[in-house]
Amino acid sequence: MKMVPRLTMADAQHIMQACLAKAKELAVDMDIAITDDAGHLIMFQRMDNARITSIDIAISKSFTAAAARKSTRAYGDISVPGKPAFGINTSNQGRFSIVAGGLPLFMQEFIVGGVGCSSGTPDQDEIVAQAGVNAFTAYTS
Amino acid sequence: MKMVPRLTMADAQHIMQACLAKAKELAVDMDIAITDDAGHLIMFQRMDNARITSIDIAISKSFTAAAARKSTRAYGDISVPGKPAFGINTSNQGRFSIVAGGLPLFMQEFIVGGVGCSSGTPDQDEIVAQAGVNAFTAYTS
Amino acid sequence: MKMVPRLTMADAQHIMQACLAKAKELAVDMDIAITDDAGHLIMFQRMDNARITSIDIAISKSFTAAAARKSTRAYGDISVPGKPAFGINTSNQGRFSIVAGGLPLFMQEFIVGGVGCSSGTPDQDEIVAQAGVNAFTAYTS
Amino acid sequence: MKMVPRLTMADAQHIMQACLAKAKELAVDMDIAITDDAGHLIMFQRMDNARITSIDIAISKSFTAAAARKSTRAYGDISVPGKPAFGINTSNQGRFSIVAGGLPLFMQEFIVGGVGCSSGTPDQDEIVAQAGVNAFTAYTS
Repeated sequence: MKMVPRLTMADAQHIMQACLAKAKELAVDMDIAITDDAGHLIMFQRMDNARITSIDIAISKSFTAAAARKSTRAYGDISVPGKPAFGINTSNQGRFSIVAGGLPLFMQEFIVGGVGCSSGTPDQDEIVAQAGVNAFTAYTS
Repeated sequence: MKMVPRLTMADAQHIMQACLAKAKELAVDMDIAITDDAGHLIMFQRMDNARITSIDIAISKSFTAAAARKSTRAYGDISVPGKPAFGINTSNQGRFSIVAGGLPLFMQEFIVGGVGCSSGTPDQDEIVAQAGVNAFTAYTS
Repeated sequence: MKMVPRLTMADAQHIMQACLAKAKELAVDMDIAITDDAGHLIMFQRMDNARITSIDIAISKSFTAAAARKSTRAYGDISVPGKPAFGINTSNQGRFSIVAGGLPLFMQEFIVGGVGCSSGTPDQDEIVAQAGVNAFTAYTS
Repeated sequence: MKMVPRLTMADAQHIMQACLAKAKELAVDMDIAITDDAGHLIMFQRMDNARITSIDIAISKSFTAAAARKSTRAYGDISVPGKPAFGINTSNQGRFSIVAGGLPLFMQEFIVGGVGCSSGTPDQDEIVAQAGVNAFTAYTS
C-alpha cells in the first residue's frame, strides 16, 4: 500500500470558479469538466451557450489529461499520420482526446486530476483549463 | 415556431445547492446531475465519498427523467416482468434508468430538465432530487 | 486535498496468489481480476480452462465491487423485480455486475479496490474472491 | 480436425516476468497484456505508475497483434491517409490498435497469442513486448 493525495469536491469547485471566470473574460461559453486522478468526473458545468457536442469532448479531455498524465495538446502533436501515437484517439472507447484543452493537475510528483474545456477554439479551451490549473497550483503551494 | 423555457446554468447551480444541502442533512455523499429538457448535462457534482458507479447512474437518471418526462421510480414499477415497460432499461444505450432517484423539472406545462441522484438508497436518492425540484419550483413560481 | 491509501501491484500479486490457490483447492479454473479503488484493472489472470465469457464478467465484478463499495451479491439481492435496485445492472455500460463473486477490498474505512472471480458457480466465485480478501486483510492488519 | 498449440497461464506468467524485468530495466512503469490466439486476455499487470489510459491500449495492442497476426507497428505504417489500411483503427469497436507496442506470439507457423504494452513511448512499449516474445521463443525452441 502507498498513500496518495486525492482531489476533493471543494478543490474542484475552486478550480471550476477560476475556469468560469476566465471563460467569461474571453467571452466564450464553455463546457468545463474536472476529474480525479483515475479520470472519473468530480464536477461539470455547461455555460448557457456552450455546445452540446462539447459536453462529451470536455469530459473526454479531462479524462485523458488525468489518466494519461499529459496535456491533450501533447497527444495531438504525436498523433498525426506518420507520428508514433497515430490512431491513439480511438482507444478507450473513443474517449482518448487529442485536441488541445485538457490539462493534468499535479501536486508535487502526484497526478491528482484533470481539467477539460471545450466549445471555443482549442487554444481558448486550453487557456480556460490553464486558469483552473493555475488556481489549483496557487492554493496548494 | 413556439417559445419554450430553457434551464440556465444559474438555475442548475440553484438546484444543485439545494440537493447538496439535503444530502448533507441526510449525511449521505451523493453524485448529483442536472440536465436540460433534451437530457443533456448542464451540471454535475460528486461529493467526496459518493460511489464511482453512481456517476454514470446519476447522469442516466437525470437524462431519463428529463427525456422521458417521468420520475425514474415510475418506470421501475412498470418494468418488472409481465408489465408493459419490461426491458426498457436496455434502450438508449443502457442509459434508460428505472431506479428511483431521477425526477423531471417542469415549469408550468413545459418540461425543462431533470435531476438525478445516486449513491444512497434509491429512496434517499429521490429525497435529494426532490429537494432540488422543490428549490426550482419555489423560485420559478 | 486529502490523503488516501492506494493498492500497489505487489498487493495485487499477493491477493492473486491467494485466489489462485483457493481455485486450485476447489478444482475450478477461474478468471480472476483485481482493480484499484477507482475500478481500474491492476491484475488479471485466466486459468487454463476458465470460460472466455467470464473474462469480462470477472473484470466487471471487480469494477463493481470497488466502485460501488459492496459485494456484487448484495446488489443481486436488491435488483430483482420489485426491489429498489431493479435494472441497475444495465448502468455503467453494462459493467455493473449483480452476480455474486465480486468483493470490495477495504483498509480501515477506505475502499482500496475490488476482487472479481468468474467461471465457477457464483458461490464458488465468491469463495475464491474471499480468499483474496482474507489474504489482503491478514497482511495489512 | 487439426491440432493447434495453445498458450497456457504458465506460459503467460513466463512472458509477463520477462516484460516486467525489461520495463524495470528501462525504468518505465507499463501496462502489460497477454492474450491467446483468439485475442482473449490471459494475463494483465499494471505497474504502479503506469497510465490509466494505457490499460485499454495495452489490452487492445495484444488483441490486435494476436487476432491480426502482425505487430501493431506494421499497421501504423499502412494506416496513414492514402495507404491501404487507412481507417482500420476504428474497426473492432475501436480495439484495432495501430500504435507500436503489440507483437504476435508464434510457435513455428502457428499464431498462439499476443503481447501488448503501453505507458512508455511506442518504441519503449515495443521493446518491452519484444522481451516477452524473446522469452517465449527461447523456452519453446
